[in-house]
Amino acid sequence: MARFRVAVHITPRKGLLDPQGQAVAGALHSLGFSGVSAAHVGRYIVLETEAESASAAGAEVKAMCGKLLANPVTEDFEIEPATPL
Amino acid sequence: MARFRVAVHITPRKGLLDPQGQAVAGALHSLGFSGVSAAHVGRYIVLETEAESASAAGAEVKAMCGKLLANPVTEDFEIEPATPL
Repeated sequence: MARFRVAVHITPRKGLLDPQGQAVAGALHSLGFSGVSAAHVGRYIVLETEAESASAAGAEVKAMCGKLLANPVTEDFEIEPATPL
Repeated sequence: MARFRVAVHITPRKGLLDPQGQAVAGALHSLGFSGVSAAHVGRYIVLETEAESASAAGAEVKAMCGKLLANPVTEDFEIEPATPL
């Protein structure tokens, strides 16, 4: 067993309402950043986990995303390749 | 002026308490993912903005992070290179 670092990007699914992104875009306009046409706010989760291999670590993180980290109805997730620690 | 897509990773500063990350790690343990030794939860923000150049877009997003997107006391941010839209 070795330790791996796996990063995950979780983003609101395209085409669904993204109220947090809209709020950020509006606040940026209020602050004078008038060039901003859109903002999307997601989560960035970094996990340190033990696994047999990098691919096993990635598969385990995919299961974590399905069970806890991401909302499968409204969010998409993308798992970066695991890197050894 | 051209449109650019700029992504930002905002993470809790190393060494500070990260209660959200601890909660995620605890919940993953409860679900049976016992190999997880740490979790860190940050934000992933994607902005679409108008600027003269990719470097100008990056500089503008850096200003946005300082003024609104990140908490300079507790968070670090990393801006990815701007890509044309």
